Amino acid sequence: MTISDAAFESRLKESAAATQTMLLTLLSDAVLPDELARPERLMAAMRHGSLNGGKRLRPFLVRESALLLGGDDDAALRVGTALECLHCYSLIHDDLPAMDDDDTRRGQPTVHKAFDYATAILAGDSLLTYAFDIIAAPETQLPDRAKTELVLALARAAGAGGMAGGQALDLAAETSPPDEAGIRMLQAMKTGALIRFGCEAGAIIAGASAHDRQTLRLFGQKIGLAFQLADDLLDLTADAATMGKATGKDAARGKGTLVGLHGIDWAEKHLDELTAEAVELLAPYGEKAMMLQATARFVANRQN
Amino acid sequence: MTISDAAFESRLKESAAATQTMLLTLLSDAVLPDELARPERLMAAMRHGSLNGGKRLRPFLVRESALLLGGDDDAALRVGTALECLHCYSLIHDDLPAMDDDDTRRGQPTVHKAFDYATAILAGDSLLTYAFDIIAAPETQLPDRAKTELVLALARAAGAGGMAGGQALDLAAETSPPDEAGIRMLQAMKTGALIRFGCEAGAIIAGASAHDRQTLRLFGQKIGLAFQLADDLLDLTADAATMGKATGKDAARGKGTLVGLHGIDWAEKHLDELTAEAVELLAPYGEKAMMLQATARFVANRQN
Repeated sequence: MTISDAAFESRLKESAAATQTMLLTLLSDAVLPDELARPERLMAAMRHGSLNGGKRLRPFLVRESALLLGGDDDAALRVGTALECLHCYSLIHDDLPAMDDDDTRRGQPTVHKAFDYATAILAGDSLLTYAFDIIAAPETQLPDRAKTELVLALARAAGAGGMAGGQALDLAAETSPPDEAGIRMLQAMKTGALIRFGCEAGAIIAGASAHDRQTLRLFGQKIGLAFQLADDLLDLTADAATMGKATGKDAARGKGTLVGLHGIDWAEKHLDELTAEAVELLAPYGEKAMMLQATARFVANRQN
Repeated sequence: MTISDAAFESRLKESAAATQTMLLTLLSDAVLPDELARPERLMAAMRHGSLNGGKRLRPFLVRESALLLGGDDDAALRVGTALECLHCYSLIHDDLPAMDDDDTRRGQPTVHKAFDYATAILAGDSLLTYAFDIIAAPETQLPDRAKTELVLALARAAGAGGMAGGQALDLAAETSPPDEAGIRMLQAMKTGALIRFGCEAGAIIAGASAHDRQTLRLFGQKIGLAFQLADDLLDLTADAATMGKATGKDAARGKGTLVGLHGIDWAEKHLDELTAEAVELLAPYGEKAMMLQATARFVANRQN
């Protein structure tokens, strides 16, 4: 049994709205009680870099994974919002002139454009730091054991062996293109690690067994790969459609992708396989897993 | 009874060496087990930005505070090293062209000079993230309750309401100089927060009473203020001596300091008062507090 696209999308939208509300609360000026201690411009930059829409896929993964295994949804929403803060920090820093040098994101000026370079660096730093604050805060009602595991897993997903490391490997790839194993590792780190954490976090929040946690981790790994593959395909086909050429932005910049290596047909087939594997992993959970299985399909088939 | 300068300095040096050894271990390539997943250049930049000497005052504060209250020294050294990683991240980002634009630090090229701008941003991000990793890791043998408290206290000391916020207020101060209350708040956040955390961390590691923790927190607050005041005095007197003018770099850049506001005589007197208050706070602990009391004097009287 599967869920309808409309039902899935309405649930995803509902969750994005809940995340937005939580972000608004957590990033309001009132969180810093001392008026003197409020760096207004910095907080405005943190809001600018995190409140601007998006599907909020990562918080959704945390909540649905927690729900599957019986975890508390209030805690999952807070942990999901922490993950979103961390994701937004990575976007702010990626957009900086020294990195991807992007002027706009989702139709809005990037943080360094809307504010300034220094403020964008600090806004990213602060959102990264805030992610750990939110998890450890008393308002996140979880056992200390779970908080410690969440902090450790998130730090590993985000640090030199995870997202930031993947970003560094990506910089290096511009001058010396990696082979297939290198591309897979780079992508698993750069985009995969946070998505995998999102799924694993739900298991930690639920205090799940090692087996359940490992299953969710594997599920996250599969959809993380699928997410990147779909991204590479979109990059290629969107460019082909709008720019009349067969190579996309990443390929043009000399970055290897699996699509570039194996072609579109292979990539579409591989994407279907990954999705089937991800769906199959959750089969033992029966109907309860429908929403996460629909998420796997959504990640592979999304058009933006 | 007080401790001799020589005994204090030898202990501080010994602790700096232990911190250096721990940093070398924690930042060795071997911490990332998968060879494919090693962003070598990023890790080299993280080492460049953290292994270059320094007094390692913050880890020393964590260890001595823990020792005073009966906390485990192995755990204190790890937490102190985490704090040092976070401190080094702040130096790397502060040195960036968009911030203070410094080419050298302690006689070495800064990270963005020795590597590149993007790598320096990522090295800072990764050291910040790693600080939370180190605290939460199983190798840091502390109860989960203590780890959660450490993560929360460190995130608050480092984030928008702490160090990063102070840095943002400092940027704003260049165009609209704050009044005395504003200067005090800015400094308490920018430099004070991590020093205060160092002292409080020792109390958390020791599982100390709320009263002991509050005392150490206050002690940290006093010496954090003293640290900044001594810094401002050094800035002024070093410049006066070497550059033949009475205003230092910060003053020249339009940043208000308490020394600039009240003069050198007032500042030296206030520094003595702060030191006396800090020493007095620990008087109830008797001889056990000698090392921390010597640290308060050292912070006020250091010549670099």
